[in-house]
Amino acid sequence: MSSERATAELLRERRHRWEDPLRTAAAAADRDGLAFLRALVAGELPPPPIAATLGFTLRYVEAGRAVFELEPAEYHYNPIGSVHGGVYATLLDSATGCALHSLLPAGATYTSLDLSVKFLRAVRADTGTLTCEGTVTHLGGRTALAEARLTGPDGRLYAHATSTLMIFRPEATT
Amino acid sequence: MSSERATAELLRERRHRWEDPLRTAAAAADRDGLAFLRALVAGELPPPPIAATLGFTLRYVEAGRAVFELEPAEYHYNPIGSVHGGVYATLLDSATGCALHSLLPAGATYTSLDLSVKFLRAVRADTGTLTCEGTVTHLGGRTALAEARLTGPDGRLYAHATSTLMIFRPEATT
Amino acid sequence: MSSERATAELLRERRHRWEDPLRTAAAAADRDGLAFLRALVAGELPPPPIAATLGFTLRYVEAGRAVFELEPAEYHYNPIGSVHGGVYATLLDSATGCALHSLLPAGATYTSLDLSVKFLRAVRADTGTLTCEGTVTHLGGRTALAEARLTGPDGRLYAHATSTLMIFRPEATT
Amino acid sequence: MSSERATAELLRERRHRWEDPLRTAAAAADRDGLAFLRALVAGELPPPPIAATLGFTLRYVEAGRAVFELEPAEYHYNPIGSVHGGVYATLLDSATGCALHSLLPAGATYTSLDLSVKFLRAVRADTGTLTCEGTVTHLGGRTALAEARLTGPDGRLYAHATSTLMIFRPEATT
Repeated sequence: MSSERATAELLRERRHRWEDPLRTAAAAADRDGLAFLRALVAGELPPPPIAATLGFTLRYVEAGRAVFELEPAEYHYNPIGSVHGGVYATLLDSATGCALHSLLPAGATYTSLDLSVKFLRAVRADTGTLTCEGTVTHLGGRTALAEARLTGPDGRLYAHATSTLMIFRPEATT
Repeated sequence: MSSERATAELLRERRHRWEDPLRTAAAAADRDGLAFLRALVAGELPPPPIAATLGFTLRYVEAGRAVFELEPAEYHYNPIGSVHGGVYATLLDSATGCALHSLLPAGATYTSLDLSVKFLRAVRADTGTLTCEGTVTHLGGRTALAEARLTGPDGRLYAHATSTLMIFRPEATT
Repeated sequence: MSSERATAELLRERRHRWEDPLRTAAAAADRDGLAFLRALVAGELPPPPIAATLGFTLRYVEAGRAVFELEPAEYHYNPIGSVHGGVYATLLDSATGCALHSLLPAGATYTSLDLSVKFLRAVRADTGTLTCEGTVTHLGGRTALAEARLTGPDGRLYAHATSTLMIFRPEATT
Repeated sequence: MSSERATAELLRERRHRWEDPLRTAAAAADRDGLAFLRALVAGELPPPPIAATLGFTLRYVEAGRAVFELEPAEYHYNPIGSVHGGVYATLLDSATGCALHSLLPAGATYTSLDLSVKFLRAVRADTGTLTCEGTVTHLGGRTALAEARLTGPDGRLYAHATSTLMIFRPEATT
């Protein structure tokens, strides 16, 4: 995108690979959320493309809780010299979504209605591995509330999010 | 990340390139926000790495308003078969941040304190070009409120966000 | 609550009256939202108790838009010398809720899933009449997004809110 | 407000009393936040007017934590037959604000920049005493993040909020 203009020594390049996401999505249909997510953690199912694009990984899942990791790097940077808030938001949204998914039966799906992110500290390439943990705060029939915390290697909080999610259960939604 | 396991026909690869982001960040220090952003639009300054990573582009800027574009694609997908909400959030956060930046004098900086995203419709690879327009709703001495709208090629609203930003002015903050 | 301790000259008292709210709620069941809200504006139905408690009034409604007024006063004050943010939130939530209600058919109901309020300026007893206008940004089958703006007599923006609302339509919600 | 129209048996009336709020606000200037709030809990300072208007009480405070109680009643009702979300928002905003205030030195002040409320369950007059607990999640030099939870007598969660607050410290804020 900016390659012609740059001198060779300033130019960075990265390549990332992923697999057909519909294959992974299809695998979600016939197992419950916890089994599906555990297959992702175990590498039995390919991670979603966005995880490869932004370099984050689902490390752990249990009922109502999901933990991701990300190594912040230069390719996450915004124009003002730090990791773009959208990278935080992506991790936080993944963590809240998967925390809910881990509680859903086979055939149920969900979608985020909103995500309210609070940015507390800047992240830079030398910050070290970020951990993002999502938990379900409230599980209703049609909606759920989940929270996520983004922490650094020093245990400090870098960002926090809450998300309301809508649930589509296989049977009636009432 | 998942390449060994995949069969050749399922595997996708993408490469993206960017330049030293500190060079762009340094260029922000000695010109006002509008001039800085116009240099980005004109290609006189390299876009930030995250723009190359996620494939979005700053198309237009005027005082208090910034417009981005993104072509949704498979590499943006989440594990449930559509564009990850974090991609929306990244665009919305860029649009609110740049809308504010366009109103700041040289030497002033800003940071997002929060981003409240509402997700209205799913985006898929065939949705077509998304436009994200940020505007400043309120400009104070120390904080500002900005909004952004993400629309599809059909003009429909896909997502909306509000963001409170903190401003660090060169002189006193009062 | 604090009367025994106060000297007579410092003590203020206010009384407010309201009618059985279930009568008003019942009236909502057999007419569409716009007709119901217009009956409230016209005084044909008693206002809800909270409107009397906090002193606000629904002044105008049309399809997708509702306008309230409030006279800020000392009985709205927080412990730090200005109108409590909860008073803003109440008006903003009323405005977003009624803006949606105005678009619903008879028999449909709704509930707010969230309310994201941004506080921009302090309100004091001498600020003058506040106007709060809610509009519907997006109307879906099951959810809607509405916004509201709180402005002062000088036209300046004092607060802003967005709200996601869930809709329960008379027929199936799927 | 609606008294002429109502028949006598339907009309309810309530009176509430409060003291000059500027006296309480002035008392905040010369003691640290925790001492100020403890004086409110002990009844040595009059509660703010809004607490009398809506009937809530600060029951307990410690460093970084504040607990309020409210008895839901008919005078809190919205036009659709339950307690208005603004009442929740008022309690949640009080809890987050006071949780922060409890950590501030004498002379420091604060203001809420935003409040993101999630509504989880309806409250009615027979729900019983609500407890609202605010805690500080992150304390920075210029801003803080606080959360609050609204629970019923059964321990269930009725609402949740996060709030970003700006701090004005006696010395320079930079």
